[in-house]
Amino acid sequence: MDIKELMLDKAKKARKAARELAVISTEIKNRALLAMADALEKRRELILSENVRDLEEGRQKGLKRSYLDRLMLDENRIGQMAEGLRQTAGLPDPVGEGTYSTIRPNGLEIRRVKVPLGVIGIIYEARPNVTSDAVGLCLKSGNAVILRGGSEAIHSNQAIVSLLTKAAYDEGIPEGALQFVEVTEREAVNVMLRLNGYLDVVIPRGGPGLIKMVVENSSVPVIETGTGICHTFVDASADFDMALRIAVNAKTSRPAVCNAMETLLVHEDIAGAFLPRLEAAMREKKVEFRGCDKARAICPGMNEATEEDWSTEYGDLILSVKVVKNIDEAIEHINQYNTGHSETIVTDSFQNAHRFQWAVDAAAVYVNASTRFTDGFEFGFGAEIGISTQKLHARGPMGLDALTSMKYLICGNGQIR
Amino acid sequence: MDIKELMLDKAKKARKAARELAVISTEIKNRALLAMADALEKRRELILSENVRDLEEGRQKGLKRSYLDRLMLDENRIGQMAEGLRQTAGLPDPVGEGTYSTIRPNGLEIRRVKVPLGVIGIIYEARPNVTSDAVGLCLKSGNAVILRGGSEAIHSNQAIVSLLTKAAYDEGIPEGALQFVEVTEREAVNVMLRLNGYLDVVIPRGGPGLIKMVVENSSVPVIETGTGICHTFVDASADFDMALRIAVNAKTSRPAVCNAMETLLVHEDIAGAFLPRLEAAMREKKVEFRGCDKARAICPGMNEATEEDWSTEYGDLILSVKVVKNIDEAIEHINQYNTGHSETIVTDSFQNAHRFQWAVDAAAVYVNASTRFTDGFEFGFGAEIGISTQKLHARGPMGLDALTSMKYLICGNGQIR
Repeated sequence: MDIKELMLDKAKKARKAARELAVISTEIKNRALLAMADALEKRRELILSENVRDLEEGRQKGLKRSYLDRLMLDENRIGQMAEGLRQTAGLPDPVGEGTYSTIRPNGLEIRRVKVPLGVIGIIYEARPNVTSDAVGLCLKSGNAVILRGGSEAIHSNQAIVSLLTKAAYDEGIPEGALQFVEVTEREAVNVMLRLNGYLDVVIPRGGPGLIKMVVENSSVPVIETGTGICHTFVDASADFDMALRIAVNAKTSRPAVCNAMETLLVHEDIAGAFLPRLEAAMREKKVEFRGCDKARAICPGMNEATEEDWSTEYGDLILSVKVVKNIDEAIEHINQYNTGHSETIVTDSFQNAHRFQWAVDAAAVYVNASTRFTDGFEFGFGAEIGISTQKLHARGPMGLDALTSMKYLICGNGQIR
Repeated sequence: MDIKELMLDKAKKARKAARELAVISTEIKNRALLAMADALEKRRELILSENVRDLEEGRQKGLKRSYLDRLMLDENRIGQMAEGLRQTAGLPDPVGEGTYSTIRPNGLEIRRVKVPLGVIGIIYEARPNVTSDAVGLCLKSGNAVILRGGSEAIHSNQAIVSLLTKAAYDEGIPEGALQFVEVTEREAVNVMLRLNGYLDVVIPRGGPGLIKMVVENSSVPVIETGTGICHTFVDASADFDMALRIAVNAKTSRPAVCNAMETLLVHEDIAGAFLPRLEAAMREKKVEFRGCDKARAICPGMNEATEEDWSTEYGDLILSVKVVKNIDEAIEHINQYNTGHSETIVTDSFQNAHRFQWAVDAAAVYVNASTRFTDGFEFGFGAEIGISTQKLHARGPMGLDALTSMKYLICGNGQIR
């Protein structure tokens, strides 16, 4: 079978299973998730030995240490995967939830309910835990799923999928609902992105390169996730201690994640007093600086920021710093350079807080808190399939709701128009 | 300026205006809509004379009569355009409406509100009334809009846009919020579909060719609209009079629209009694038939249906008819051939009604009513920008809500993670 036929075959099976999955009970879905969790723990040796194969091949290929670290599984990580599935089993099932209901003057009863999207394609990179997280969330929301993981994790992913699939089908999940793309050729992705009519949505999870490739080449609807150039604006009325605490947390608590801060903006009236304290606190955490001219006039130890810095997601212990004249300049800078992810203002001005929240164009806009809170668990969704940085369908952290569509059910007694 | 620069210039202006539009008051938006309605009526002579130019050029080009009919404007149609704008002014403003609100254990206050999408691209064909409808709905929901109409309506559209733009800007709508693509080269559409970062969504309105082209070539998110292969399933327990009334209405009241029926399915137990009555009623309305073998055994006057008929949107007084063994075969046929638009069952079986509504995969699934009701006004939305046949973001009739995204506003008092 060539790759195109292979992918089409998987898509058809997933489509067929999706029809059945859309109407099965929450009980069956939950039982399957719990069985999947048990299977991962019981057969952890299999997963670990396959993971060792991936790691060895990765070392031979000369993969970076940080990449190998993301690829690596141990007992603890497998336990987290199982725990994630159990938590998802405990969440309310969104399918069938009513979101609109009316009786029209002609007597037609119209209600809108949440239904599964159908077939979801997930294209992801190194982390094998995405495999079980994505399968759990897709199944719980009644969707079939086609998984395309990175070639570097192929053995780990195959082991995980084989365990999940058996456990799920044994508990009554329709056969075909889980499809794993075992061919590692890039061609498989190209075919996947053109499966309109079979695939309802594609969600890419990974670095900017992967996401850009999917957005530019997919005719299937895409939910864009993840890139985050997040800002902290320290306003003139900010409490300095609070601003320092928030800035240090946003930059250093986990610099590689998408809700970490990349640029700090500071009001010129307080820059002279605030920046030296910021510099000292950040240097303790080994943060490097890229400052604008005004910032460097205050803190000469900062390196010079170039235009490129304002649009760079460092994902590392590097911070760009810009002194701004006022909140207008701060908002303008953010709306020009941000990626629509998370932004925060530290201020004691009610008016500026309000203005900032409404005028800044991003999924999550904070007042007096760290941008690091943008994630599905912190927002109370109980789970997360990714963070949408586009405006269509879902924006910000996506829980189970984001994996549903809607459907109108209309009942009449013979109405015609 | 070449076409690429021209489009980029329009997009930048729209993007800038969208930032301001997102935070202006409902009052200003409503005043602008009312002023736009007045302008269309006061300057109707200008619109009519430009429309005559389009019609003359269309006749010279040999456009079909039905096409010229859609292109044609008269006092009545201009009055309807103005009335549409006034009705939109009267609808509630969706912007700012809260859809989720919580206080987290750490004291963070999180609420989710509706915000404009930003910049919406509309690509459409003959009907010049789409110009004012789309502008009204986009502005009311706080969005800037880039309009690309058909070249055949260029003079009419330019006249309408010039009137709308002046009236809107005079009332305080930010300059740049309305962009009209005056170049008729196809290249302009190609550029538009790649304006990621400037354009938040593209909505194509028109025939299947236009929609397919947009879906396949756009890297900007698309809301797919409009194609409808709608079915009526007459179950064994159907009230014959009701079934006839619904079928005749669904097929003949406006055969060219997307919510009209294309295929009738009938349970084999009643086909012998029902089909002759259906044939007689439909023949009175000059409907032609394409029947399956079983249907033709009952009504020999029907033409033969080919495989192609099941996936054809006739948009005309033609009906394909298929006899099915049971509701399972009906559901299977529909899920194979429908376009996810509107489907109806006529039945007196509660169980079959329930099963049909949940198992059929479509935006609107009816029991005992005509599919013709699928539209924004009939559903109580007060307006409609199109009918989505995809599952992402919006499904079924799209009112003002469908033109919004969401945003999380989070307030804290120094929380870090």
